[in-house]
Amino acid sequence: MTTAAKTTRVSLAERSYDIVTGSGTLAGLSDFLRERCSAQHAVLITDSNVDELYADALGDALVEHDWEVHVLIVEPGEASKSVDIAGDLWNTMLEEGADRESIVVAVGGGVVGDLAGWVAASFARGVPFFQVPTTLLAQVDSSVGGKVGVNLPEAKNMVGAFWQPHGVLVDVDVLDSLPEREYRAGLAEVVKYGVILDADFFAYLEANADEINDRDAATLTTVIERCCRLKADVVEEDERETSGRRAVLNYGHTFAHAFEAAGEYGELLHGEAVAAGMRCAAALAARLGKVDAAFVERQEQLLESLELKLDVPAYDAEELVQLMYHDKKVSGGELRFVLPTRLGHVELVGGVSDEDVITVLKEFAR
Amino acid sequence: MTTAAKTTRVSLAERSYDIVTGSGTLAGLSDFLRERCSAQHAVLITDSNVDELYADALGDALVEHDWEVHVLIVEPGEASKSVDIAGDLWNTMLEEGADRESIVVAVGGGVVGDLAGWVAASFARGVPFFQVPTTLLAQVDSSVGGKVGVNLPEAKNMVGAFWQPHGVLVDVDVLDSLPEREYRAGLAEVVKYGVILDADFFAYLEANADEINDRDAATLTTVIERCCRLKADVVEEDERETSGRRAVLNYGHTFAHAFEAAGEYGELLHGEAVAAGMRCAAALAARLGKVDAAFVERQEQLLESLELKLDVPAYDAEELVQLMYHDKKVSGGELRFVLPTRLGHVELVGGVSDEDVITVLKEFAR
Repeated sequence: MTTAAKTTRVSLAERSYDIVTGSGTLAGLSDFLRERCSAQHAVLITDSNVDELYADALGDALVEHDWEVHVLIVEPGEASKSVDIAGDLWNTMLEEGADRESIVVAVGGGVVGDLAGWVAASFARGVPFFQVPTTLLAQVDSSVGGKVGVNLPEAKNMVGAFWQPHGVLVDVDVLDSLPEREYRAGLAEVVKYGVILDADFFAYLEANADEINDRDAATLTTVIERCCRLKADVVEEDERETSGRRAVLNYGHTFAHAFEAAGEYGELLHGEAVAAGMRCAAALAARLGKVDAAFVERQEQLLESLELKLDVPAYDAEELVQLMYHDKKVSGGELRFVLPTRLGHVELVGGVSDEDVITVLKEFAR
Repeated sequence: MTTAAKTTRVSLAERSYDIVTGSGTLAGLSDFLRERCSAQHAVLITDSNVDELYADALGDALVEHDWEVHVLIVEPGEASKSVDIAGDLWNTMLEEGADRESIVVAVGGGVVGDLAGWVAASFARGVPFFQVPTTLLAQVDSSVGGKVGVNLPEAKNMVGAFWQPHGVLVDVDVLDSLPEREYRAGLAEVVKYGVILDADFFAYLEANADEINDRDAATLTTVIERCCRLKADVVEEDERETSGRRAVLNYGHTFAHAFEAAGEYGELLHGEAVAAGMRCAAALAARLGKVDAAFVERQEQLLESLELKLDVPAYDAEELVQLMYHDKKVSGGELRFVLPTRLGHVELVGGVSDEDVITVLKEFAR
């Protein structure tokens, strides 16, 4: 509780906003909102797990600060990210008296944030939106960048908007309640930022692996703030994903998406798939002469320190390559990968052969 | 077919776009689209009436110009403006191979335009959107301004976005097939622009009422272009309806919304309600000393020339006032009206007494 909160300013053409990260920040939610909007009615959207842990209490605290509050609760899990659930939320908001002067506050992980963000973007043609991310993955990734939306039965994130939040409030203390597996999975995206953008940050993670494994609040505040700053820098350059700059964020993700699809999104957490995908991507980069063995080993070591040196799942390699061809990021019929050239730098590499990809997959498969 | 097409440039912070108005313009749809995007796949959204008249043929013409085309057809009528129908359209688009490189073209009236616009705004977080409005109301009103969306069961236009089109192509020839009643209703909004913004245009309408009643192509091109320019001027000042400037467009609409609600949206067309609402608003302005009797008489005369001097429906006046209080544009619990002060100028008038409103309503009710 002694850690000073850190503020990351995200400066966009459309709107600038702050990400405030620290220990115990949730106690200041009412002030955080009041400093950033003139609303009096807050709709909190959460899932039943997070409601019990945090959202219900946050709603009560807002009421004590003279907010009119409605807490809308969805089922935990990806299935809630649907057009139908969004429709239910809009109807409920209307019944509860929400109008264009209301705000939406997402309290939860990536599913809740993506869903609530789109609900906010579309209700009354857009109301202010705030994020209180409660998973490490949401804190370092999905709460920055303004991508919101829901899935169609046949395609993830196919319906949505770019809708920048008015503010993001990160409390590292909520990570104490995060299940070990989810916490680990979130660390995969943390490591990713070091590899793709910031060698110094990578070294910081190496030097502080024990503190990270212990979920030390001060260390996590530093880590999360840095990740948000790094992602914000990319997003500021490519707000609506038109320049290609955002592609660097997909390091490990071509492999990861194939692993997730092969497991029908039920076997691996997204972060786990990313960790395995980064191992494959580094090996592919080495095979193509982009990096040396020392780079690969250093990444392997950090993943191991953070208990993320996960076995690459033993799916059929040829099937995985076919899934990669169906990934929406394939352009012009060729496989493209975000590959490192040195620590802190990646490039988009096209024209990779199926054979190279299959060789790498077979090298790791257990 | 000899009328030169006229172009209205709508200049917005987010994006500028053209409204091209003329006779026979639809023959140039393929070029119109190609000049404004690099897509090869067009999703036409229409209703079954307009499909038979225009959209099916437009789709064929695009195919002949080497477009990949899918025509998606909804039922005619307001019920198609729903979250469920939007969901069906997104799923169908995905099945048909649409992706972020596709475009959406709305071919129809206001319902189709509002629905298709929101479908475009949200598919793949937004794809380019074009409008081919086929009713006079859509040509002069809903196709300008970027408001798109659908209804909730309990509230019209409650879910949506601001999503500016990449271009609007208006062919006055399609008005030949418009039923008389719908054509008249569209003229109500035309008269509105003269009253609220442009006394010269009002005089033009007076001088050309016969040509308008005959649906003369050259006259309609002039009329529609002027209406689009007038609305665009307002929208350019208040793109996202935040400054209050757009309120001037609601002249007659506080009355009109109450008439429509009292008739449960089944008795009057929107334009008919607006015509009746403008009669009441002018009388209210005269009662409050804002305009003289000559103003009221001049508006009455023009409405009569255009066969729009419609009886104000004989709903209970007290009930209508209660409906006005429930209208979402009521602010701070007082009735506010957009009222003329002279031809071509209106102001927002607050604190109007129920008694004045009821007196006016009773004066007109038949």
